[in-house]
Amino acid sequence: MAAAAVLSREFAQPAFDIVRAAHAELEVTDLEASRAFYVDVLGLVETERAGDRVYLRGWEERLHHSIVLHRTGEAAVNHLAFRVREPADLDRLASDFERRGSPTARLDSEHAQGPTLRAFSETGFPLEFFHEMDAVEPRLQHFHEQRGAPIMRIDHFNLHVPDVERDFVFWNELGFRCSEYIATDDEDERITAAWLLRKPGVHDVALTSGRGPRLHHIGVWVADMASVLRACDQLAAAGYAAHIERGPGRHGVSNAFFVYLRDPDGHRIELYSCDYYTGDPGHAPLRWSVKNPLCRSFYGTRAPDSWYEESSRVRDLGGRLVEPRDAGLDERTEIMA
Amino acid sequence: MAAAAVLSREFAQPAFDIVRAAHAELEVTDLEASRAFYVDVLGLVETERAGDRVYLRGWEERLHHSIVLHRTGEAAVNHLAFRVREPADLDRLASDFERRGSPTARLDSEHAQGPTLRAFSETGFPLEFFHEMDAVEPRLQHFHEQRGAPIMRIDHFNLHVPDVERDFVFWNELGFRCSEYIATDDEDERITAAWLLRKPGVHDVALTSGRGPRLHHIGVWVADMASVLRACDQLAAAGYAAHIERGPGRHGVSNAFFVYLRDPDGHRIELYSCDYYTGDPGHAPLRWSVKNPLCRSFYGTRAPDSWYEESSRVRDLGGRLVEPRDAGLDERTEIMA
Amino acid sequence: MAAAAVLSREFAQPAFDIVRAAHAELEVTDLEASRAFYVDVLGLVETERAGDRVYLRGWEERLHHSIVLHRTGEAAVNHLAFRVREPADLDRLASDFERRGSPTARLDSEHAQGPTLRAFSETGFPLEFFHEMDAVEPRLQHFHEQRGAPIMRIDHFNLHVPDVERDFVFWNELGFRCSEYIATDDEDERITAAWLLRKPGVHDVALTSGRGPRLHHIGVWVADMASVLRACDQLAAAGYAAHIERGPGRHGVSNAFFVYLRDPDGHRIELYSCDYYTGDPGHAPLRWSVKNPLCRSFYGTRAPDSWYEESSRVRDLGGRLVEPRDAGLDERTEIMA
Amino acid sequence: MAAAAVLSREFAQPAFDIVRAAHAELEVTDLEASRAFYVDVLGLVETERAGDRVYLRGWEERLHHSIVLHRTGEAAVNHLAFRVREPADLDRLASDFERRGSPTARLDSEHAQGPTLRAFSETGFPLEFFHEMDAVEPRLQHFHEQRGAPIMRIDHFNLHVPDVERDFVFWNELGFRCSEYIATDDEDERITAAWLLRKPGVHDVALTSGRGPRLHHIGVWVADMASVLRACDQLAAAGYAAHIERGPGRHGVSNAFFVYLRDPDGHRIELYSCDYYTGDPGHAPLRWSVKNPLCRSFYGTRAPDSWYEESSRVRDLGGRLVEPRDAGLDERTEIMA
Repeated sequence: MAAAAVLSREFAQPAFDIVRAAHAELEVTDLEASRAFYVDVLGLVETERAGDRVYLRGWEERLHHSIVLHRTGEAAVNHLAFRVREPADLDRLASDFERRGSPTARLDSEHAQGPTLRAFSETGFPLEFFHEMDAVEPRLQHFHEQRGAPIMRIDHFNLHVPDVERDFVFWNELGFRCSEYIATDDEDERITAAWLLRKPGVHDVALTSGRGPRLHHIGVWVADMASVLRACDQLAAAGYAAHIERGPGRHGVSNAFFVYLRDPDGHRIELYSCDYYTGDPGHAPLRWSVKNPLCRSFYGTRAPDSWYEESSRVRDLGGRLVEPRDAGLDERTEIMA
Repeated sequence: MAAAAVLSREFAQPAFDIVRAAHAELEVTDLEASRAFYVDVLGLVETERAGDRVYLRGWEERLHHSIVLHRTGEAAVNHLAFRVREPADLDRLASDFERRGSPTARLDSEHAQGPTLRAFSETGFPLEFFHEMDAVEPRLQHFHEQRGAPIMRIDHFNLHVPDVERDFVFWNELGFRCSEYIATDDEDERITAAWLLRKPGVHDVALTSGRGPRLHHIGVWVADMASVLRACDQLAAAGYAAHIERGPGRHGVSNAFFVYLRDPDGHRIELYSCDYYTGDPGHAPLRWSVKNPLCRSFYGTRAPDSWYEESSRVRDLGGRLVEPRDAGLDERTEIMA
Repeated sequence: MAAAAVLSREFAQPAFDIVRAAHAELEVTDLEASRAFYVDVLGLVETERAGDRVYLRGWEERLHHSIVLHRTGEAAVNHLAFRVREPADLDRLASDFERRGSPTARLDSEHAQGPTLRAFSETGFPLEFFHEMDAVEPRLQHFHEQRGAPIMRIDHFNLHVPDVERDFVFWNELGFRCSEYIATDDEDERITAAWLLRKPGVHDVALTSGRGPRLHHIGVWVADMASVLRACDQLAAAGYAAHIERGPGRHGVSNAFFVYLRDPDGHRIELYSCDYYTGDPGHAPLRWSVKNPLCRSFYGTRAPDSWYEESSRVRDLGGRLVEPRDAGLDERTEIMA
Repeated sequence: MAAAAVLSREFAQPAFDIVRAAHAELEVTDLEASRAFYVDVLGLVETERAGDRVYLRGWEERLHHSIVLHRTGEAAVNHLAFRVREPADLDRLASDFERRGSPTARLDSEHAQGPTLRAFSETGFPLEFFHEMDAVEPRLQHFHEQRGAPIMRIDHFNLHVPDVERDFVFWNELGFRCSEYIATDDEDERITAAWLLRKPGVHDVALTSGRGPRLHHIGVWVADMASVLRACDQLAAAGYAAHIERGPGRHGVSNAFFVYLRDPDGHRIELYSCDYYTGDPGHAPLRWSVKNPLCRSFYGTRAPDSWYEESSRVRDLGGRLVEPRDAGLDERTEIMA
């Protein structure tokens, strides 16, 4: 499939309404070490600790959690969750996945959360859809209690996928739209990365050509560039300099001012700020050539190899780690930073 | 009407879809002086100058204009414009205003813009609805050309209205939802100000109890607090210190870090940053007591009297200035800063 | 005495070498309330608590303290201290004050400090001179522990004096030099405020025409404008909005981006950033007209009356509060903000 | 010579008083290209263009120039200049260099400058000393005209020297004092880099072990971290991303938030902010182990090889390029970033 074919396609609005990327459950091997990283250093709000799980949220968030740390035997992504507009959207989504012949599961038991649908993306990412979650107080203006950046809210998931164009179709069928993409310049133009949105920022989901399904990173929103720098200073001062993998810097794509961090299990977190409004009808995607170094890094700094190569493994419905497949496009030259 | 009555009402989603506050046409008496203020000092992008009009936009905007300066004999607001999702929404809106017995007009002649509907708000603000406008290049990353804050995009209109609750109903009937409001603490609780949104920030329209219909200010988005301060420094250095009316400071309501400016005709512009995401279903409005000084000014600084008293007059369909009526609630004690 | 007479005078370098403004001892009525303000909210480092005194310092400071809170029966300034280059400077200073017929006292008992000379300024401010103080670790890069602005170091003392020109001579005789001043524009030009330095910033001591001797404020250095804003946010969030007296804003004089705070006893603290290098030989003072509103406030905001009128009383050598005298120049119109 | 030997030595105050690093003359091959970089992009103030030279200064500076661009046949450093406190210091310095048997030259012909002494550092850097220079207006508060970071003033010179300890002695004999240094941890402790000051910041001159004499970079002061980022954004947007060599980031040593740029001839400029006050008597140097990665880069990012290897050649008194000698200590592992 070539870029032109997927970019020119008109995707119908689906019957359901996915509101936004909402939370992720990360499996970790040492809950104390992870909690120290996310709460004591990065300064996420700890809503609750229950058994082997710690429930975290950003300072402006009003739902019970946006990141769940779950102690299990190995580092993995349990699921990536999206909020839907109304409860009936879960049935509509279930029908859609059935139509695709893709397995789903219904859960009623997730802590602090209402009825839940589990399903898989085209590539095999474990997805979750829900409408109801316990409400909590926002702490946006608790400035005196804030630590770290501070992190305001979850923003997006960045996925390593072996075939970007195939996943591009999948997510557009779910109602996502493209804000920016990177493509090869040859005659058989290929998309090597794409940014796809539901809420009107640059993305809720990004697709990056690479060995997958693996989660490249979770992006969390911070208010401004100064916040990104403050987080770097605090991380380094607290002995976590080795957890700063890339940045601080600016992406050409998305305009984000960012830093990439690795948690104690290697899960990658992006502190993300400075993107822009995309909510108008007919908002046209921006194209970047894969040969334009500014799309990777606006200031020209090369990303380290680990940033291209390493990602978090994901689980299937049976709880097994999904074996990733290699990408058709070479990572180092083709993948956007 | 009391606050409880309007706040507890369930408003149906209308048949049309208003996307966001999109542009305003300000009538000015000295086009060169106004252009100097908005372009040379504040640094808005000048898309085009045509006859007696200068068309301006923010650095990330992709539509032809978000502020129009129009030289006429007197300072006034010609209209406040909202973009709709699809062309057919104009017909649906026209039907809705007819149902209300409220006059409308259709225009095909607005520069750089498609079919247009003019109508009036409950209080008499001249509104405009449109879907099509000429596309232009965003200049978000033209950092080397940016001046002033820089201003990224238009954000909202703040309206002085004599009866906030009556207007609250009007805007909710148009599909707007409330993010925050200020109310009296007495038994007969009254709303003295309300922030109403279509796009998922804090507001597209704010209602403030005061002599009206008059436009209190146009809010334009800047990226961060540092941008607000840079604009203040540049304004003062360029000889415009007397145009800084209030701030820089932070609002409790909306969390905005702001500064209020007065243009050469006295039209008020707010440089606005740091609000938050409101796009989730069931996003509950925040209540502030009118007696809580933090809602007015989070740092405790008193707003000057001019900020409470002065606002821009608006035109009716016939081009006459609308005579404002006094507010039922006293401005100084009841109105949020 | 007129401005010309004092400004044109050549002052000889004295035999002693005062390095900089170094610390102040503030008498407070409620030590817990003061400690909460300075440590828990403003985030100064608490070096030590001993008896009725709490010893504080900024995050980069290497001496034991720069602010001492001392619980006594009433709010007052016990002394303002300056560090001298070598121990023998104390004897040279003592001789100088004797020559003036001005009383001095020697102390060996100040906590964490070596031999000390107490003396009085022309107007009656209780001064202290010392060379030795216990060394402590700087915590400049303990970013993860920092709270508040954070405050880096003490910067200056601002003094309300009834006759600026008389004090101008006194401080220049001590080796201070003028970086900026405000003066009347009439034929008999009078200095209404002056900024005087030893270290190469804008000032160690400022003189402001007003009822005195009273301490207008202690200025403490923060790294940048963002720090000033963060402190404001944290103060307001912690319930201290009423302690923010003026700002945030920029001074024309000194270029400082500032905010003025009042501690629980009303002692005034300025968070101060953004001044400039003044260490070159022959650095010429900048003159501001008292009629130029930018010198008071670069953004045009009027200072509240309290800022002009209220200041901290000081003690004499016998421990009595010194009775202030009125200024010859009217405060409201003549005094720089 | 070992670290202990040079660090423990008591250096007498010399008879002369060097105030600070004051300006540099860079030889460039394309004056238009260099002017575009320094003025149009970085935003230095152009004081004057005269013949083959462009004279530049920072926005707060009051002397005629701090960087001179001089068109010659090849990229080189013509001289590094220091201001002295009084004219007679030139004679005292000349005597001192004669005592060393080191050649000097007197010039009266430097544009906008008074009598001048040329001499050489121990390693062979071409030095210049002067007292008088034409005064110009500071433009600190011309915020509306400022571009780029903006750059406030020159701060320091960083020198590649083959034997740090030998140069350490030379500069201390000139009255410089050490604020920080990096040393090996072996028994025969060796200094691999040192920061030496006259004005009370972290340095006027830094010595870095490396092939020399070569100028590693000129450090120029910007007000804050936000300024460094703004410069990066503007450079990249203007097509100069490839000129950003390293950063933005923070140094452990000096606490500076920095970015390193390469001009069109490869001369390196550091935008430098956030250091601290060092002016107290007895200010003790901070020691960093060469094995501590935080001293190189507080956020852990590795500097590119070019940053370690490339530096600007310098001229001798006869105008010939000085042949650099290799350093005794290996660059890559031993040299601080």
